[in-house]
Formats: sequence, C-alpha cells, structure tokens
Amino acid sequence: MTKDMVPGVKVAVVGVTGAVGTEMVSVLHDRNFPLTDLRLFASARSAGKTLETPFGSKTIEEFTVDSVAECDVALLAVSGDFSKEYAPQLAERGVTVIDNSSAFRYDDDKPLVVPEINADAIGDAKIIANPNCTTAILAVALQPLHAKFGLKRAIVSTYQAASGSGAPGMKELEEETRNILQGGQSSNKVFVHPLPFNVIPHIDKFQDNGYTKEEMKVTWETRKIMRIPDLPLSCTAVRIPTLRAHAEAATLEFDKPVTPEAAREALSGAPGVKIVDDPENNAYPMPLNASGHYDVEVGRIRQSIVFGDHGLDIFVCGDQLLKGAALNAVQIAECVVSGKVR
Amino acid sequence: MTKDMVPGVKVAVVGVTGAVGTEMVSVLHDRNFPLTDLRLFASARSAGKTLETPFGSKTIEEFTVDSVAECDVALLAVSGDFSKEYAPQLAERGVTVIDNSSAFRYDDDKPLVVPEINADAIGDAKIIANPNCTTAILAVALQPLHAKFGLKRAIVSTYQAASGSGAPGMKELEEETRNILQGGQSSNKVFVHPLPFNVIPHIDKFQDNGYTKEEMKVTWETRKIMRIPDLPLSCTAVRIPTLRAHAEAATLEFDKPVTPEAAREALSGAPGVKIVDDPENNAYPMPLNASGHYDVEVGRIRQSIVFGDHGLDIFVCGDQLLKGAALNAVQIAECVVSGKVR
Repeated sequence: MTKDMVPGVKVAVVGVTGAVGTEMVSVLHDRNFPLTDLRLFASARSAGKTLETPFGSKTIEEFTVDSVAECDVALLAVSGDFSKEYAPQLAERGVTVIDNSSAFRYDDDKPLVVPEINADAIGDAKIIANPNCTTAILAVALQPLHAKFGLKRAIVSTYQAASGSGAPGMKELEEETRNILQGGQSSNKVFVHPLPFNVIPHIDKFQDNGYTKEEMKVTWETRKIMRIPDLPLSCTAVRIPTLRAHAEAATLEFDKPVTPEAAREALSGAPGVKIVDDPENNAYPMPLNASGHYDVEVGRIRQSIVFGDHGLDIFVCGDQLLKGAALNAVQIAECVVSGKVR
Repeated sequence: MTKDMVPGVKVAVVGVTGAVGTEMVSVLHDRNFPLTDLRLFASARSAGKTLETPFGSKTIEEFTVDSVAECDVALLAVSGDFSKEYAPQLAERGVTVIDNSSAFRYDDDKPLVVPEINADAIGDAKIIANPNCTTAILAVALQPLHAKFGLKRAIVSTYQAASGSGAPGMKELEEETRNILQGGQSSNKVFVHPLPFNVIPHIDKFQDNGYTKEEMKVTWETRKIMRIPDLPLSCTAVRIPTLRAHAEAATLEFDKPVTPEAAREALSGAPGVKIVDDPENNAYPMPLNASGHYDVEVGRIRQSIVFGDHGLDIFVCGDQLLKGAALNAVQIAECVVSGKVR
C-alpha cells in the first residue's frame, strides 16, 4: 500500500445495499478485519438511510470519489460500468480497489485473485479484480488437484443460484414460486425466463462462439487464476431455482495418473476446501449445507469413466455470495493489509 | 405377436395409479393406439376405484396374472421386483410385456428399446425393457449425431425433475416448497434430502465405483441402445427442484470432425428431436417448454472448447414422464403391433 500502514485501515464498501455489499460488511466483521473505520457507500437514492450491520447502525453515504478516497481499501460491489469509470480514479488517489465486477478481470496488468491460489499476483496493484463466482468456487477445488496431478482438461456444468442476479434475483425466485404455487402464472423481470421449477441455460450474454459470457468467464478466469493459459475448459452455465449457493459438476483430466483416494488426500486440508464425500451417509456437496459457509464443499469424487486412470469426476458447491464474491474480496483485502501479496 | 393379430389389440396398463401409468393411458389415447380394449390394473388397494381417463371413466382392476393374460400387450409401470416376478409369467401366457422398470434392461436376451434408434432389436421378444428416463431423452439426441459423426466419448450432467420419483416426488416438492415459503422447515420422505431450493447429487443407490446406479444406468443403457458397447460415457445425475422435465448438459467427442452447423443439419428432422437453438431470441431447451411435449428439445449446440473440431457441447431437455417413460413405452407397443420390429 502506498499510504502509511497503520495497525488498522479505513475500509469503504461501495454498493452496500446489494446482496454482495451486505455480505462484505458481515464478512469483514466475522473475520475481525483490522479496520479502524468502515464507511458504507451507495447511490444517492440510498444515501442517508441507516443500515443495521454487525458493526451497529451505520448511515449510508452517497458515493463520491473524494469521500471514498479518504479510505485505504475500497471493496466495490457495483456494476462493471461504474467500476470502469471510478476504480481508476480511486486507485490514482491511493486507494486499493478490490472490484467484484468483470471490468478489469481480463486486463493483463490487473491481477485476478483467489487468495488460496495466487495471492502472489497482487504485488503492488492498486486495482485487484475479484473473480466470477462460479470460477472462484471451482478454482479453489481444482488448485490442490492441479498442484499434485497437473490439470489437463476440464468439463464443467453449473447449477447456479438466483443470488447470482443479486437480491432482486432471490426475491423474484421466492415471489414467483409463491405465485405459481397459488395457481398463478409466473412472470419474470430479473431472469430471461421464469425461474421457478425451471432451468435456464443462459447466464449473461451470448458470445459469437455460442457460449455465454458466463461460460467463457469460467474458461478465461480459471486459466488466468490457475496460470494455465491454454487450459481446455468447457462450461455449460445453468440457472436453477436455488437461492444462494452454486453447485458444479466437473469432469477432469490430469497429466499424471490419479485415484479418488489420492485426490481426497490432495484436497484434505487444502485452504478453503471442505471434503464432503461420504455417500454411505448420504453426504455430498449441496446448496442446503454450503449456503452461509465459507468453505467450498467438494465431493462425489470418483474415477472418471471417460478419462480413466487420468481422470476424476467431482461435484462442488459453494456460497455464491461468500466464496463466490464477498468472502474472496475480503480475503484479498486481508492479503493487501497483511502484505502477503508476493 | 404369437396371438392372432386383429386390427385392434387388447392393452393392459399395470400400475395405472402412478405418474407414469396415468401418462401411458393419455398417450395411448392421444396417439390413437389401435386398441379394442383397454384395461387398467393396480394393487388391491386401488381396485374398484373409478379413474377418469381420456377414454372415459374406467374401473381399476386388481392385478392378477390371469386377468392381464387376457390382453395382448401389457405396459408395466411398476417396481422392478414386481416386474421380475410377473413379467415372465405374463410373457409365458403370450402377452407382450413392455416394462418400465430396470428389471430386464441389462439382460443380454432382452431388448432395451428407444424406437427411434433400435426398434429392430425387438424381434420376437415377449419382454421388452423401456429405458431409464435420462437415457431415453439423451439417446434420442445423440443418435443422429452418432450416425453422422461417430460418437467417441460423452460427458453428461443432468438436471432431473421430481417426477423421477413419481407423483409422490412431485407432491413433496410442491408441498415442501410451500412450507419453506411460509417460513417452515422443509422435511423429506421421498427424497434423500429436502429438495426445495436445493440440488441433490444422489439418485438411486451408490455403486462400488462411486457412481450412483442412476449414473451407471445412463452409461450402461446408452451403450446398449446405441450399440456402442464400450462407449466411454460419464454421468453426474442430479436431482433439482423442477417438476417433470429432465435437462442434460452433454459434452461430446466424435470420430469425425463436426461443426455446430453440421450438427444442426444432422439433427434437423430427426425423429423425436426438436431443435430449439436460437440464442438471439433466448430460445434453448428448458423444462418450462419441454414439459408435456413428446419431442426432446436440443439446443445450445456449440463447438466444444475441450474437444475442438471433433467436439460439441449441447443441452437437451425432455419430458421425463413422456419420452422418459410413457411415450417411449407406447412407441414400443406401436412397433410391436405394426410389426416394425426388425
């Protein structure tokens, strides 16, 4: 950090009224983040309102560069357009910006970080990108396996929660589900189609290659975070009627031979990973259990029928708002503050 | 058929009170199946009750071998144990049995049939197995691609509806979802865990290799139906909170080069297939649209990032109770009756 480091730092959460912003405040408190001051920012519409937080009642301030520039670290839970405009201005004023949007993730000179994997990529960066939720959850599970067996190819299908569209997404799913159960017709504003009792294989915009941007994010970002620039990774990203944890089925091929036992050993004790893989007791990763928790659940570990003794099938589940967003951002801030960035 | 063929045949539906049995009756009517008599059978508990059907009010009879043996064709929508005991007895009495359970699917001397693919496997068989729902839906989409490009490997992740556990499964999902939305705790009897707003990567029993039996059914049955005995096919079968259509993400490798355009051409007009692949207009396979329809929707057809010019990623969706069960069984019966069995 370019500002004088003091035992405590001043932290800004920008976009605090959203689902991710709310979680950022909770996670900062829960992890005893060494802050001396926490300031909460949102648009003019919310400014002046009081927010009940684990830190007590806090008044929301209207976002201005001048106000946020009084802080050392800014966690941005805002749109990509907003980030593109203001993150560079804040960085120029000496603020370390951790941005949850996709605005900077693909810039070669901006680190894209999952702290368990590549905290060393942070270096002196003033703008650090927080990855796509699906990617962060997946990468935490892949890294320990990659380190041991060398990841060669990955095929991923996702089961993504409504929270990926923020609080309005969760609200729409609940309200429209209620509506359908009362015999009504489901309508939709947040999602492209009605989500209750449906699956929608369409998240973010379609690209020229037929993949959605969400699917390509998983490919591009996994490559960058795990430093496997050409990793053949193919994703099908699907929105399903769950609330806040993403699940993912992954079929993996490795350079070296692998067994489920060796995989469990590699994953055992890996940071951010909780092995939940006890079929006899009906234990495997599920949104029901992963929601509200920091660790990514990894289970259903089995020898891949397709890739044989060089392959695994696994199932992972992680909280989209936590490891998929707020937790990872706060972990990056922890790295910055503690200097663990190389 | 060993009995004298008449223009119309006598048909029995056994297990008519279940979700699949109910649909069998509807499909027989909808397709103008050439029957002279339709008799509906269930356990003693339901016998004597009146069922409203598209054929009018019908009285449910108690299942006995003697009664069903008066029919030419019996569609069995009952448990595997029941089928194992009674199907051979009925076959011995000259009835052609089409069995929806998994009891006979893996017997070398029993055909396992998706009529669009291998009606010729029926031959003189008196017991014909109806495939697993996930398999039937997938195979219909794979066959035209296999015929043209030669299927080499397949990786499948499923999004399976509550109807896979029959009417009680659908009822539990609806009731427990209502319960949760009213602030209650979800309980579960039909499913291993609460299903509302959850995903459960566990359908049928776990096998020694770590896959569930549902997952292995997709592997075993696809191989048998498509006559690719060693096809490397790996499946992750996941129950999600939808009601009656299964969706599946599949990554496919072929012997020959393939393009999305060539794939669409191969699928275009293929029996049982409806191409729904117009991303610009937000059109792709979804339970919302596939439910209640005969055709399997195929879309999201794109060049696989993992398998390059020999690979495709696709998304399919089909009604679990129709192509996944009742429709396929009636189609088999149509083959038998019309003699299109070689």
